[in-house]
Amino acid sequence: MTDDLIRTYRDIRSRSRALIEPLSAEDCALQSMPDASPQKWHLAHTSWFWETFVLTPGLPGYRAFDPSFSYLFNSYYNSIGEQFPRPIRGLLSRPDLNTVLAYREHVDAGMLRWFDQGHHADTDLHALVLLGLNHEQQHQELQLTDLKHLLSLNPLRPVYGPALDRPAPGPAPMAWHGFEGGAVTVGHDGRGFAFDNEGPAHTQWLAPYEIAERLVTNGEYLAFIDAGGYQRPEFWLSEGFAALTEQGWQAPAYWQQRDGRWCRFGLDGEAPLREQEPVIHLSLYEADAYARFAGARLATEFEWEHAARQVPAQLPDLANTAWQWTSSSYAPYPGYQAAAGAVGEYNGKFMVNQYVLRGGSRLTPPGHSRITYRNFFPAATRWQLTGLRLARGPRRG
Amino acid sequence: MTDDLIRTYRDIRSRSRALIEPLSAEDCALQSMPDASPQKWHLAHTSWFWETFVLTPGLPGYRAFDPSFSYLFNSYYNSIGEQFPRPIRGLLSRPDLNTVLAYREHVDAGMLRWFDQGHHADTDLHALVLLGLNHEQQHQELQLTDLKHLLSLNPLRPVYGPALDRPAPGPAPMAWHGFEGGAVTVGHDGRGFAFDNEGPAHTQWLAPYEIAERLVTNGEYLAFIDAGGYQRPEFWLSEGFAALTEQGWQAPAYWQQRDGRWCRFGLDGEAPLREQEPVIHLSLYEADAYARFAGARLATEFEWEHAARQVPAQLPDLANTAWQWTSSSYAPYPGYQAAAGAVGEYNGKFMVNQYVLRGGSRLTPPGHSRITYRNFFPAATRWQLTGLRLARGPRRG
Amino acid sequence: MTDDLIRTYRDIRSRSRALIEPLSAEDCALQSMPDASPQKWHLAHTSWFWETFVLTPGLPGYRAFDPSFSYLFNSYYNSIGEQFPRPIRGLLSRPDLNTVLAYREHVDAGMLRWFDQGHHADTDLHALVLLGLNHEQQHQELQLTDLKHLLSLNPLRPVYGPALDRPAPGPAPMAWHGFEGGAVTVGHDGRGFAFDNEGPAHTQWLAPYEIAERLVTNGEYLAFIDAGGYQRPEFWLSEGFAALTEQGWQAPAYWQQRDGRWCRFGLDGEAPLREQEPVIHLSLYEADAYARFAGARLATEFEWEHAARQVPAQLPDLANTAWQWTSSSYAPYPGYQAAAGAVGEYNGKFMVNQYVLRGGSRLTPPGHSRITYRNFFPAATRWQLTGLRLARGPRRG
Amino acid sequence: MTDDLIRTYRDIRSRSRALIEPLSAEDCALQSMPDASPQKWHLAHTSWFWETFVLTPGLPGYRAFDPSFSYLFNSYYNSIGEQFPRPIRGLLSRPDLNTVLAYREHVDAGMLRWFDQGHHADTDLHALVLLGLNHEQQHQELQLTDLKHLLSLNPLRPVYGPALDRPAPGPAPMAWHGFEGGAVTVGHDGRGFAFDNEGPAHTQWLAPYEIAERLVTNGEYLAFIDAGGYQRPEFWLSEGFAALTEQGWQAPAYWQQRDGRWCRFGLDGEAPLREQEPVIHLSLYEADAYARFAGARLATEFEWEHAARQVPAQLPDLANTAWQWTSSSYAPYPGYQAAAGAVGEYNGKFMVNQYVLRGGSRLTPPGHSRITYRNFFPAATRWQLTGLRLARGPRRG
Repeated sequence: MTDDLIRTYRDIRSRSRALIEPLSAEDCALQSMPDASPQKWHLAHTSWFWETFVLTPGLPGYRAFDPSFSYLFNSYYNSIGEQFPRPIRGLLSRPDLNTVLAYREHVDAGMLRWFDQGHHADTDLHALVLLGLNHEQQHQELQLTDLKHLLSLNPLRPVYGPALDRPAPGPAPMAWHGFEGGAVTVGHDGRGFAFDNEGPAHTQWLAPYEIAERLVTNGEYLAFIDAGGYQRPEFWLSEGFAALTEQGWQAPAYWQQRDGRWCRFGLDGEAPLREQEPVIHLSLYEADAYARFAGARLATEFEWEHAARQVPAQLPDLANTAWQWTSSSYAPYPGYQAAAGAVGEYNGKFMVNQYVLRGGSRLTPPGHSRITYRNFFPAATRWQLTGLRLARGPRRG
Repeated sequence: MTDDLIRTYRDIRSRSRALIEPLSAEDCALQSMPDASPQKWHLAHTSWFWETFVLTPGLPGYRAFDPSFSYLFNSYYNSIGEQFPRPIRGLLSRPDLNTVLAYREHVDAGMLRWFDQGHHADTDLHALVLLGLNHEQQHQELQLTDLKHLLSLNPLRPVYGPALDRPAPGPAPMAWHGFEGGAVTVGHDGRGFAFDNEGPAHTQWLAPYEIAERLVTNGEYLAFIDAGGYQRPEFWLSEGFAALTEQGWQAPAYWQQRDGRWCRFGLDGEAPLREQEPVIHLSLYEADAYARFAGARLATEFEWEHAARQVPAQLPDLANTAWQWTSSSYAPYPGYQAAAGAVGEYNGKFMVNQYVLRGGSRLTPPGHSRITYRNFFPAATRWQLTGLRLARGPRRG
Repeated sequence: MTDDLIRTYRDIRSRSRALIEPLSAEDCALQSMPDASPQKWHLAHTSWFWETFVLTPGLPGYRAFDPSFSYLFNSYYNSIGEQFPRPIRGLLSRPDLNTVLAYREHVDAGMLRWFDQGHHADTDLHALVLLGLNHEQQHQELQLTDLKHLLSLNPLRPVYGPALDRPAPGPAPMAWHGFEGGAVTVGHDGRGFAFDNEGPAHTQWLAPYEIAERLVTNGEYLAFIDAGGYQRPEFWLSEGFAALTEQGWQAPAYWQQRDGRWCRFGLDGEAPLREQEPVIHLSLYEADAYARFAGARLATEFEWEHAARQVPAQLPDLANTAWQWTSSSYAPYPGYQAAAGAVGEYNGKFMVNQYVLRGGSRLTPPGHSRITYRNFFPAATRWQLTGLRLARGPRRG
Repeated sequence: MTDDLIRTYRDIRSRSRALIEPLSAEDCALQSMPDASPQKWHLAHTSWFWETFVLTPGLPGYRAFDPSFSYLFNSYYNSIGEQFPRPIRGLLSRPDLNTVLAYREHVDAGMLRWFDQGHHADTDLHALVLLGLNHEQQHQELQLTDLKHLLSLNPLRPVYGPALDRPAPGPAPMAWHGFEGGAVTVGHDGRGFAFDNEGPAHTQWLAPYEIAERLVTNGEYLAFIDAGGYQRPEFWLSEGFAALTEQGWQAPAYWQQRDGRWCRFGLDGEAPLREQEPVIHLSLYEADAYARFAGARLATEFEWEHAARQVPAQLPDLANTAWQWTSSSYAPYPGYQAAAGAVGEYNGKFMVNQYVLRGGSRLTPPGHSRITYRNFFPAATRWQLTGLRLARGPRRG
C-alpha cells in the first residue's frame, strides 16, 4: 500500500506537469479573469500545499524553497496567513515558469524523503496525503478549464491539442428512470477517501421522482434557443434573466455563430457544434431555464445520488461527461464538521450561495470523482464543463 | 364571511394609508437604495395589484385611474408588461402623493363595487383577494423598514414615532428544546390561505437536534464583537468575511458608537442599546458567524417548523419579534407548482441565492405570518428586522 | 445705492423662491444625478451662503436657524468644515420644504437687520453682498436645469410651465466676422462686480480669426446626425467617441425620436424639434465634432471675448441664448489670485479638466452675465443649455 | 544622409529589442493596468507601424507576416480598422515572444529592401520614416515605465538592472530666472523633424514671470508631506483632493515606508530615498499642490519654452531628468492641422483633458526630445517620470 501511495503521488504530480507540455511560458503566466488562475500559479500552489501541510511541519531539516512563496501561493487559508490577492495572480511575472518547475522538483524531492522516512504510516498523515492528491487532481481540471478560458479570448483561436473537453454522445432517445423515494441514505460512509463535505452518511426523505437516462444534448438545447429561450423571461429565474441581460448571453459559453452556423471553442480550437453531444458550459440559470422549457426540473443532489446508487449502469454518462447542476444549494450535511486545523478551511467556509454539481466531466482525472462527490460553483458559472440531467415529479395532489 | 372579507379589505387598506400619517410628502417620495422603495411607490403598487389583477379583468366598466400606472407601478410581473426600473423609483416626483392617495381611493371605490357585485363568491377570486390582502401586508412591513433605512441616513436622526420596531426581551437564560427528528411533515396543508411557496405539505427527514428557546440578545452579540468577532475570519463564511471587509461592517446595521457607548437607530430615533433585547438587523453572514462563535449553528427551516409545531408555546418569541435566519436556501418544495397566470410570478422565480427566514417581526402585521410562512432575502440583507435563534446537533458519530 | 442693493437683494431672493411656485414638495426634494441638486437644497444652500459668510460673522446677536444646517448645506467649502456628501443630497427628506422656506425667511430677516445696521457701507462687505447675489443667480439657473433633468426622466413627461428654456432663432444665413488679432486685452478690469476668475485684465496675443455671427441650429446639427456623425470616429476627439459609445449618445440630450420625428423635452414638456432654433444640450465633444464636420473649430475664450468686445451688436445671440463651448480649458489668468478666506474656494480650486463657456443662456438671470464672464463645466456635460458658435482661422502657412 | 537614416533605423530598432534582454517571456507578456502595455505588445506594435504605414502600401511584393496582426497590434488608428481592446492586451499569450521577435525581423528585412529601393528619397516618405523612428522612441520610454509599473506590483521586488530611471541631483540652492515676457515666438518652425502638435510656430504673449533653475527635490517634497500636505485640502485642486482620497495617495508613486524610512521602487529594485534627487512620479495634482504649498505655481508650457530658448544652459536639468508638468492643457496651436491620412490620428484626437509636460526624462532616448516637444498625460498620471519645476509671477497690481 505504501508503494501504491508513492506511485500514485508520482503519477499525479507528473500529470499536473504534463498538462503544460504543449504550452509556452506566456500561456502559463496569464490570468483571464478573477475566477481563473494562471497555469504557473496552479503548479506552484499544488506544491505549496505539500510544503505547507506536510513538509514544513513534518520533515526534519526541510528548508522552504523560497519563504515568500508561503504568501504568494496561499489560495485562501487564513490560518496559514495572508494571501496574495486572487484577482491579480496574473500580474506576477516572477517567479518565472522555470523557477516554479524547480519549486515542484524541490517539493517532490522533499516528499520522497518524507515517504522514505515512513511518516505516511501514521493514519492522519496518510489521510493528509490522500487529501493532497485529490486536491492536486481538482487543480488539474481547473488547469484545463482556466486555460480554455484564456485561449478562448484570443482572436487567433489557439489550439491546445486534442479535444479532451469534448463529451461523448449518450443514447439517442430520452428515457426516464423512476424511483419510489422514501427514507434513503446518502453521503459518504467514511470507508476510503472522501472530502469532508461528503459526509456524514445520513438519511434523506425523497418524494417519488424520475430522472433522465442521459444528459441534455446540444441539439435539444438549440431548440430552446430557436424557440426564443433567451428572450422569454417566463422560463427563467428572475436573477438568471437579469444575468443574461447584463452579460448579453445568447447561448452557452464558447458558442459562436459563424456564417449562420453554430461553432463552439474547445481545447482543439474552434469547430462546428455537434448536435448529439451533451451540452456543456451552462450556468445554473440556463440549466434551470431549459428544464422549465422542457417541462421538467433539475434533480436535487439527493435524488441524483440515490438514482446513481440504484442504477448507475443504466446512466451511461453519469460521470466523465459533464458536471450536472442540481437544484441543491451547497450546505453542510447534518452532523458535518470541518476537519481540524488549517485544512478545515478546505470546504466548509464556502457553503453559501453556491450550487452542487454531481457526476464529473471529461476533464476530471480518472478515478477522482465518486457517487457522493459534491462539486460546487456559483449559479452564474459557465467556464466549467457544466451540463444538465433532467428530473421530474412528484406529481402534485 | 363575505362581510368579513370586505371588512378585512377595508382594515388592511386603511392601515397602509395610516402608516404614512406622520410623514411629509418628501418622506414619502425618496428612495434610499435600490432594494428599498419610496412610501409613495408602495401605496401605488399595492393599489396597482388590485387594479391589475382584479378590477381591470373583472369589474365591468372599470376605468383605469391612469393608463401609465400599469407600467410605472408594476414591480416585476413580466406577464403584465415592462416595468419602470426599480433602482430609480425614487426619481418620480410625479404622480405626487396626493395623486397616489386619489389613486388608492379610486381603486377602493372600484373594489367595493366589485364586492357589491359578489364576484368574490367565486373560489378562485376569493383566493385572489386573500393573496392581494397578504401582498399588501407584506408591503406594510416593507413600508416601515424602507422608511427606517431612509431616515437612518439623515444626520438629523429623525423620529417616526414610537419604537414599533423594538423587539421585546425574551426569557433571560438560554434554554434548549430537543427533538428526535425522523420523518416529519412540513409545509402548508392547503386549509386556509398560504402563499404558494409554503406548499405542498410533504415529508422531510430530520436528524436529532436542539433549538434555543429564545433569540440571541444584543448583549450576547456584543460579547462576540468584543471578542474581535468582526476581525476573525475563522468564524465566518468566506463570502461573509469578504462582504464585511468590503462594506466595512463592524456591528449590526443601525448600530453606532457615541462617546464609547453603543446606540441603535430605530423608528423612535437614536437610543442607547438595550442588552436584553433580541439582536436584529443581522445579515445571514453575521448570524452564521455568531452561531459558530457560540458553538452552535442556524436551524434549517424544517427544524424550525417542526419545533414550532411541537412546542410553540414554549418558544415565546417565535413570531412578532424578529425574522430568524435559517440555513436553508429558498427552494421549491417537492411538487411545488407556481400559480397559473401572472400571479405565478409572485414567488417561484426568486428561488435562487436567497435564504429562508422564519417567524415574523415586530413590524409584521398581526395575523399575517404562520408556522409555515417562508420569508426570504439574500444573505447580505440587513435592513429587515432579522435576528437569530440558535440550533445544535446532531452529534457526529 | 444702498437702497438699490437692498432692493436687488429682495428681488433676487424672491426670484429663487418664485421658481418653485409651480412645483410640489416632491418635485423639490428629488435629486436625479450626482451633478444635480434638489430644488430644496438650492433654496437652503443659497440661504446658507448668507448665514455663513455674512450673518454669523457679522450680525451681532444672530442665531443660526439650525446648527446642523452648517454641515447639511455646505456645498464645498472646506474652510467652513465638512460637507454632507453631494451625491446623496436627494436622500434628505428632512428638513422638509416648509422648513427650508422658513429658513429662507429667517435669513432674510437677519439680512434686513444687517442692512439696517449699515454694515454694507464697508467696501469689502458690499463686495461680499454682490458675490452672494451673483451666487444666488447662478443657482437660479441651476434650479431650472436640474429640474429639467429630473422631469425628463419621468415617463409622464411633466410640464413645468412655459418654454423658458427655448432659445430664439438667430439670423438665418451663416455669416462670419473677421478679426486681425495681435495683442489684445481680455479679462475684467475691476470696475463693478466680477467673479475673481474673470481677472486680472491682461494681454493675449491672437492670430487672425473669424467667428460666426450666430449659433449652430438644430437643423444644421441634424445634418450632422443624418451624415452618420455619431458613427464616424474621424470627427471626434478620441475621448469624445469613447464617451458617446459608453453613454449610447445618438443625439443631443433631451432629443428623442417619436414615430420617426425628432422631439425635444423642455420645461414646457415634449414638443417637436424646431430646425431654426439654436441647438442646445451638447457636450463639448459633440460641439467639437460638429465643428470639425463643418470645416470649422471652436473659438478660444479669448477670441470669443475679443470679438464680443468689438462687435457685440452684430452677434445677436451673444448672450441670453445658449452657453457657448470654447476650446479653452478653465485656467487662471496671469496674476490670478483667489479671494482671501473661505470665499477663495469659490472658483480657483476647480481650474482643471473643465472647459470655458461664454455668453449666457435663456435661463441665465437677466443682467447676470458679462462679456468677461467665464462659465465652466466638464467636457461631457449636457444638462446645461450648452450650444456652439463656430470659429475659423488662421490659415496655415 | 540616406546611410544615416538607415543606420538610425537599425540603431533605434535594436534598442527596442535590447531593452528586453534582461527579461523573461513572462515579464514581456503581462499587462499591469489598462494604461500600460506588455513589452511584447510594444515590440509588435512598433513593427506594425512600419508594416502598416510603409511596407504594405509601399513595398512591392511585401507579404504581411500575419494578417491578424493588423487588428491585434493596431493601437488607436480608426482609419486602419478595428483594434483589439487596449485593457486586455495582456490576455494574449499568443503570439508568443519568439513569434513577435520573428515579426520584428520580418519587418526589418522588409524595411531594408524598401531602403535599398530608395523609396525614402521621396520627401513625404522620408518624413514618414522619421515619424516612425520617433514613434518607436516614444514606445521605448513606455517600455521601461510600463515594466517598472509591472515589477512594482510584485512582492518579490524584482530588479531590472541599473537605476536607469534615477534622475541626477541638480544644483542645491533654489535660484530663479526672471523674464520680461511680451510677444514671444513658440512652437516648432518646421526645420527638421517635429511632431505635428509642436507647430506651427506662432506668437504668444507672456506676462513677466520667473522660473526655477532646477526641479523640486525629494527632500523638498518630503517637507510638504511632513507638513500634512496630503491631509490639507487648501493646497489642492478640488479634483486632486478627491483623487488623493479615492486612491489613498500619501506620497508619490513607488514610495513606501519601511521601518519608518522612505524607500522608492525603481528599475534597480527598492532603495532608500535620496533627498537631493528630483522628485518624480507625481500627478499633476500633486505637482500643483506642492507649488501652492511653496508659494509658487506651475509654469505654462509657453513660459517653459520661452525660458528654455533664452537660458537653456542655466537650466541644467531642463531635459533628461524628469518630465515637467505645466499648467497648460493640451490644445492645438493656432493654425494646427493634423497630418493627412491615418497618421493624422497620431496626436490631434487626444487634445482634451490632458496636460502638457515639457523637457524629457532619464528614460527618454537621447536626442528624442526638443525645446518645442509636447508630452501629454491626464492629470492623475503617476507612472511616468513626472516631476516639477516651479514658476512665479506676475505680481498682481
